[in-house]
Amino acid sequence: MGAEELTETMTGPAQQDEAARQVTKADDLAGPQEPTDAGDRAGLVARFPAGVLITAPELVAGYAHDESRLTQRNLPWAVASPATTDEVAQCMRLAAEAGIPVVVRGAGSGLSGAANAPAGAMVLSTHRMASILEIDTIDRLAVVQPGVVTGALRAAVSEVGLFYPPDPGSVAFSTMGGNVATNAGGMCCVKYGVTGDYVVGLEAVLSDGRVMRTGRRTIKGVAGYDLTHLLVGSEGTLAIVTEITVRLLPAPAGAATMVAMFASLSDAGRAVAAIGEDAVDTSMLELLDRTTLGAIERKAHLGFGDDVAAALIVQSDAPTSADQLAAAEAACRRCDATEVVVSTDPDEADLLLRARRLALPALEELGDRLLDDVCVPRSRVVDLVEHIQRVGIEEGLEIGVFGHAGDGNMHPTIIFDESDDASRTAALRAFDSITACALRLGGTITGEHGVGRLKGAWLSRELDPVSAEMHARVRRALDPQGLLNPGCLLPG
Amino acid sequence: MGAEELTETMTGPAQQDEAARQVTKADDLAGPQEPTDAGDRAGLVARFPAGVLITAPELVAGYAHDESRLTQRNLPWAVASPATTDEVAQCMRLAAEAGIPVVVRGAGSGLSGAANAPAGAMVLSTHRMASILEIDTIDRLAVVQPGVVTGALRAAVSEVGLFYPPDPGSVAFSTMGGNVATNAGGMCCVKYGVTGDYVVGLEAVLSDGRVMRTGRRTIKGVAGYDLTHLLVGSEGTLAIVTEITVRLLPAPAGAATMVAMFASLSDAGRAVAAIGEDAVDTSMLELLDRTTLGAIERKAHLGFGDDVAAALIVQSDAPTSADQLAAAEAACRRCDATEVVVSTDPDEADLLLRARRLALPALEELGDRLLDDVCVPRSRVVDLVEHIQRVGIEEGLEIGVFGHAGDGNMHPTIIFDESDDASRTAALRAFDSITACALRLGGTITGEHGVGRLKGAWLSRELDPVSAEMHARVRRALDPQGLLNPGCLLPG
Repeated sequence: MGAEELTETMTGPAQQDEAARQVTKADDLAGPQEPTDAGDRAGLVARFPAGVLITAPELVAGYAHDESRLTQRNLPWAVASPATTDEVAQCMRLAAEAGIPVVVRGAGSGLSGAANAPAGAMVLSTHRMASILEIDTIDRLAVVQPGVVTGALRAAVSEVGLFYPPDPGSVAFSTMGGNVATNAGGMCCVKYGVTGDYVVGLEAVLSDGRVMRTGRRTIKGVAGYDLTHLLVGSEGTLAIVTEITVRLLPAPAGAATMVAMFASLSDAGRAVAAIGEDAVDTSMLELLDRTTLGAIERKAHLGFGDDVAAALIVQSDAPTSADQLAAAEAACRRCDATEVVVSTDPDEADLLLRARRLALPALEELGDRLLDDVCVPRSRVVDLVEHIQRVGIEEGLEIGVFGHAGDGNMHPTIIFDESDDASRTAALRAFDSITACALRLGGTITGEHGVGRLKGAWLSRELDPVSAEMHARVRRALDPQGLLNPGCLLPG
Repeated sequence: MGAEELTETMTGPAQQDEAARQVTKADDLAGPQEPTDAGDRAGLVARFPAGVLITAPELVAGYAHDESRLTQRNLPWAVASPATTDEVAQCMRLAAEAGIPVVVRGAGSGLSGAANAPAGAMVLSTHRMASILEIDTIDRLAVVQPGVVTGALRAAVSEVGLFYPPDPGSVAFSTMGGNVATNAGGMCCVKYGVTGDYVVGLEAVLSDGRVMRTGRRTIKGVAGYDLTHLLVGSEGTLAIVTEITVRLLPAPAGAATMVAMFASLSDAGRAVAAIGEDAVDTSMLELLDRTTLGAIERKAHLGFGDDVAAALIVQSDAPTSADQLAAAEAACRRCDATEVVVSTDPDEADLLLRARRLALPALEELGDRLLDDVCVPRSRVVDLVEHIQRVGIEEGLEIGVFGHAGDGNMHPTIIFDESDDASRTAALRAFDSITACALRLGGTITGEHGVGRLKGAWLSRELDPVSAEMHARVRRALDPQGLLNPGCLLPG
């Protein structure tokens, strides 16, 4: 499978159909659009570059929040849409002068509330900075503006035989800037790692409007601190990224794809471990639990009977992909797989991947969804899923679990009724219990979605107090006024 | 080739035979051992944990500097050798209270002066913290203390079928802590990346003696800032690393090895590019220039005639290694290689690698050596080497060039006479010219050795002023008193 096809098949989930994303009206939002200490905002507006700022509440409301649930939503003061680094710098200087908080925003497809603007804040949208500036086929680099859609970069580099691996579920609409802000992952991570593993250099605008570059264009380099990876995953709290240099790989060979079904979750878990122990070269190793399969089956009738407790979806894009999947199949059969289907045909593979792509949309049809994102050591995935299933029973909630079993990063999806206080409370209790369990199992509160405003309180449970203090000090070092995304990542 | 054999063959260069390393006497060193404002150092000594501190100048002098040349050497006040994190914390609290600068030191094999102690400083040696605490074969992690020799970790994990890739030339004696401090690379980087690509978590003691943990044990994780990689490569200026968690890989398949000879440097350069364009899966892609080959030939008579202008040494450890090297051979022959030798036999491979291992020892027999470490985009390696050859002619110096052509990280080795002022001056001029050239070619002043005290002034030419200021602010954020390795990385 070439990179282009991979883009196609791994675009995946269509988890979030852009058309279906929530649009919010100004009246739905909390808080005054301008804080009482706002000063002369009319005079300020006039000083922005022409055509960059909008303040009409009905338009601004569309930029108020991301795709997270149960996070606070407010009406921002304005949306700035600069087209150049210079314009970003101008916007930041004006915001800093007026003391206005700034929330940077890509496609708004985040799931942690990191792009939920505080009341009265300025949203800085990168959508007008959407150019691929360079694709260097010799040194295998691309330089992009932050508003470039990740899938568009993947498609562009595949046309010249290259491969940009990161493939978050949102790849068809999320932006490179957003991916950098959360250090986005995806299904490829089991083999290819995350966004940060490809970022070699950045240009960024500080909260005072000054521009700096980090990193370099070479593969190796140790001149100075790794400010590049300090910015990656910093959720817009340290600087506004205005240019991204990523390394690229040669396009992988044709992929082979497999679906294996199991009569028990623990069999599937043993198979994940066995595939790892046998060092099978997998570029995807996904797990779907019974609740998720049931939801998929109700939607699409793919043939997952009630006797299927869990399924694994495995792909290898190694030059020896057929051998690799033969090894994966053998491991699954050793672990009592009830059925295994393998294909090297792209169309058939697409069918096999359909279940994975339907996981979130199918669960979303069951009710409102609170999507979690915890990561545990690979060996503890089954323990985590079993805990989640118990919590679902205790709270009387359907909780589907699917995700990246190969790297321990799972997405428990709690189905609840947002309009029902008791259901909301139960969902939040389940969410807390799952997150606590991930920490107990030696894991982390977030594998790829970020902390945002959804898990700020949890961050202080993952970090020790000294680390938390160093986080705050580093943040002050880069943004002494505290203007960048206040309330995100580190609360208060 | 198993990981163990790799350790053996890639230990490489024996570049720095430990026995041959410079030992310095107290009288050779500049500066007073105790600054005049030292206060009651005798009282201070008594408060250190028993058996941890030595202050005898004749012993302390052995810890005064690393293996760099033309960097300032001074007599430290004392050497602390804590055995536990708690003892490190105690040492740091006492140093902080007395305002004594602290330089952390592993094996002292660094090449940039990062472990050269300021006069009156306390050297904190990690040599008593040399335990491998854990090797987890299921989740493929190792947890080590900083004083563990990198080669010892590679050997230990290879015994259980796992692989820790980083292989700096010093792998047989440099420590994991030192490797983390410089983000060390090696010959494997073209395929496997650098030390930082394997570090997932750290424990570190701050300059005030407080302990923090960074990162995690999971493969993915985005909870908070990436303080782990802020510490990696920070050369002991931000915190003292006391525990390192690294991820491991399955042991690679048997390797195939190739040497290709060329009548011109540009042919070799074209071959490097061709191997890259053909996406050959190489785990080593090294270049030796004519000066280096001449020095090797004088030492070992390996059969590199005067007509050989450059040689490439290529290894592949892919499951398809024979195919990979067949592709590499074809690329070299297309680019007019005059001779190509390929072997899949480990003993023969060892012979083929001998030239690479002899590069630095052979050059060192020609006189004093100033070893540089610049990295340029792969496509500019030939431009860099041609510039270096011109500089050698202009300055009347022999300059051998060898290194990691596959990732653009080259080691120009300037041969000079340290006792001759004119020769020293010429060597420094050549060093500056080469470093400036690397920057002009879009490269960096250091690919893997670090900035240390050798290239502090150059760092301000690579970083823009805003980035430099953010470096200083981050440093103050973590070490407000400025006690950790003052003068290293950021001068002044």
